[in-house]
Amino acid sequence: MKARPDPSIGEGSTPSVMPDISLASRLFDAFRSGTSAAPGAGITRASYGEGEALAHAIVRREAEALGLEIETDAACNLYMTLPGASTGPGIIVGSHLDSVPNGGNFDGAAGVLAGLAVVSGLIQGHVTPPCDITVMAIRAEESAWFGSSYIGSRAAFGLLTCDDVDTVIRAGDNLPLRQAIAAAGGTPETLREGSAFLHPSNIRCFIEPHIEQGPVLINAKRPIGIVTGIRGSFRYRHALCRGSYAHSGATPRRDRQDAVRALAELVTGLDRVWERLEDEGADLTITFGQVETDPNEASFSKVAGLARFSLDIRSGALDTLDRVSTELARLTKGIEARHRVTFELGRRTESDAAQMHRPLRQAMMGIAREMSVDALEMPCGAGHDAATFAAMGVPTGMIFLRNANGSHNPDEHMEIADFAIGAELLMRLCLQAGDGIP
Amino acid sequence: MKARPDPSIGEGSTPSVMPDISLASRLFDAFRSGTSAAPGAGITRASYGEGEALAHAIVRREAEALGLEIETDAACNLYMTLPGASTGPGIIVGSHLDSVPNGGNFDGAAGVLAGLAVVSGLIQGHVTPPCDITVMAIRAEESAWFGSSYIGSRAAFGLLTCDDVDTVIRAGDNLPLRQAIAAAGGTPETLREGSAFLHPSNIRCFIEPHIEQGPVLINAKRPIGIVTGIRGSFRYRHALCRGSYAHSGATPRRDRQDAVRALAELVTGLDRVWERLEDEGADLTITFGQVETDPNEASFSKVAGLARFSLDIRSGALDTLDRVSTELARLTKGIEARHRVTFELGRRTESDAAQMHRPLRQAMMGIAREMSVDALEMPCGAGHDAATFAAMGVPTGMIFLRNANGSHNPDEHMEIADFAIGAELLMRLCLQAGDGIP
Repeated sequence: MKARPDPSIGEGSTPSVMPDISLASRLFDAFRSGTSAAPGAGITRASYGEGEALAHAIVRREAEALGLEIETDAACNLYMTLPGASTGPGIIVGSHLDSVPNGGNFDGAAGVLAGLAVVSGLIQGHVTPPCDITVMAIRAEESAWFGSSYIGSRAAFGLLTCDDVDTVIRAGDNLPLRQAIAAAGGTPETLREGSAFLHPSNIRCFIEPHIEQGPVLINAKRPIGIVTGIRGSFRYRHALCRGSYAHSGATPRRDRQDAVRALAELVTGLDRVWERLEDEGADLTITFGQVETDPNEASFSKVAGLARFSLDIRSGALDTLDRVSTELARLTKGIEARHRVTFELGRRTESDAAQMHRPLRQAMMGIAREMSVDALEMPCGAGHDAATFAAMGVPTGMIFLRNANGSHNPDEHMEIADFAIGAELLMRLCLQAGDGIP
Repeated sequence: MKARPDPSIGEGSTPSVMPDISLASRLFDAFRSGTSAAPGAGITRASYGEGEALAHAIVRREAEALGLEIETDAACNLYMTLPGASTGPGIIVGSHLDSVPNGGNFDGAAGVLAGLAVVSGLIQGHVTPPCDITVMAIRAEESAWFGSSYIGSRAAFGLLTCDDVDTVIRAGDNLPLRQAIAAAGGTPETLREGSAFLHPSNIRCFIEPHIEQGPVLINAKRPIGIVTGIRGSFRYRHALCRGSYAHSGATPRRDRQDAVRALAELVTGLDRVWERLEDEGADLTITFGQVETDPNEASFSKVAGLARFSLDIRSGALDTLDRVSTELARLTKGIEARHRVTFELGRRTESDAAQMHRPLRQAMMGIAREMSVDALEMPCGAGHDAATFAAMGVPTGMIFLRNANGSHNPDEHMEIADFAIGAELLMRLCLQAGDGIP
């Protein structure tokens, strides 16, 4: 990330260079063939596992071939820098290279390859950007593996706690995070000390291109989105409703303490809350993703005495989360009284909402207009490494790439044409550094 | 079941004999100590398994000691007859001796022991009943083992199909019914031929004393109930709602195909139907006893693409079942359209409602009044062997015994004082045979 005193292009100019989309296509193919079990099957790149390591090796080799400056930190995040004209803080473009088990090829990877496509395009066009551009391939973003989000980006800022490093284990093989990092070549001791590799004051801005994980762009027929903010959340991953088992045919309606009926009332009750808040214009999602009666006790001929469930509530606005929290308490209290059941919501986890940097958003929307691209300003409901950068005070932006069939599944599908639009917007943004953007 | 020409008591007389409650208490204790894993633990008497065999051996030994005539049929049902004064059709009193896994000690057993207590009391009092009284210990009533109800009583009437005998297997050890019956000393070949041991024309009436499996008598503070009829049912044991998985934070409300939200609407929708029909006086239960998202696919951060459930609907009235069936179709259709999900209800199984014999009911209520016992006329929501006898045209009655904490669990609890009231009513009924009852 050191700058070189050799600018070949001035700030504010509009070069005719374009991102190297063929490089990105080639690497997407290499990722897919290297990390999917079979043609057409889902891909698996475990955090600090084999698939993630392969993806890191592929981009590192490419970066070496491009002549980029290469560094890694104690958590094995990979930094690939094209030096710019100025010596000041550089732009970081990046995302993660791990995936959920049996996931898609583009989630995370698109952000890293967009960055590489941009720097490769600049190199091919003999253009020196106004400031350093660092493509960052981030480790371990998916919570599917270690049950904890943003491990790589948090580690880069020295934000991993000793507890994270020492006690967290990987799903499937129970490998401790500490050992996983060491096995990948990192130094968990450095992370335990809270030592930071990245410092906000040295970062001009962070841009994360990422596939959209919902259907909003598909439905709106827009190729890209400019994210306004990342939704915060509160969650009960292991909640339950406790009633009383009883004979299905022999127990009258008013004598039941039916955990399923009680839970169903909570689901429909919160859905009405959602509908009402949505009508008022609030940003919100409410999801009961998992429900389950006790496989050992429940029977088709018994009133259910127990129902387990998960509840995930997200919004870009703290006051909306607070309102839902209040409604949740009101609903459960009423249902408990009516059905003589008890709700035990269990541990509540929260994530803060992250606002994207307004001048960056405006700059990106302006570039989209210059490109005659109909970009959609939209909230982001999923968590991303961008949230870590924003929380550290780094001016942060996200470019959403249209994607069909959702994410975290093998059918995830991004068109390379949409990727190319996002990469071009990213390149133009990088070339404007200092010219109205941070 | 042959009659002897030696009546010692005339029809209509009121003897001072009483049921032998100490015999029943002793055998309840023997059942419990022989078929529970530990003191205070649940009891397990698998159909055609060890525990059921032990219970049959215990009652057979007792019947031999009482000098009763003992027979078994091809399905190993056990018949223990005290000959009566008349040579005509006799009364059968009985219930089953198997239990669900980890169940209670009284479910089924109380009916057999009430019968034995009555005949032992008559023998002690040197009273010959007006007709034969046969205590029947029925095999394999609980569907928990072979997934099929009333195996023993159906077999007694030659109603088991070849399919039942040949293909049905036992939960846990997968033992085919055919082998299980043979191992217990029965002759499955006879059952396959549809050969009947019992013939309705030879049965004066069938009386099944049984613990109540719901809380109605407990709540009503009545010691016994006289059953008006056994509810019929229709069931979907393996139903599902199919939606589409999507990111919980990234998928707007209107874009979701949420299987959990859709199922919750069905649960609350049918509950409103139940409430309405109940207000109209209809007899009904509606139970979603099992619900489950896919353990391999569902996640707290995904909209659920699949929800499995069971649905059990019971009523004493066929037209009520038909109305619920119609409402179910209407509700699922509406929810499918609103949520863009599909319901696949799977195989529908049905059981017919069985009316208890009105003159028998009236006779039993009359006896209860004579005894100054506040018996409750009530429907029966659970299935019982009595349904088989009623379906065969045998005049059938059921005496419910008050029972706390439901059934099919170790906490099931019948007071012996309530059992004694039921047994006395049964004895008085047996002595009235021909005198206003069948």
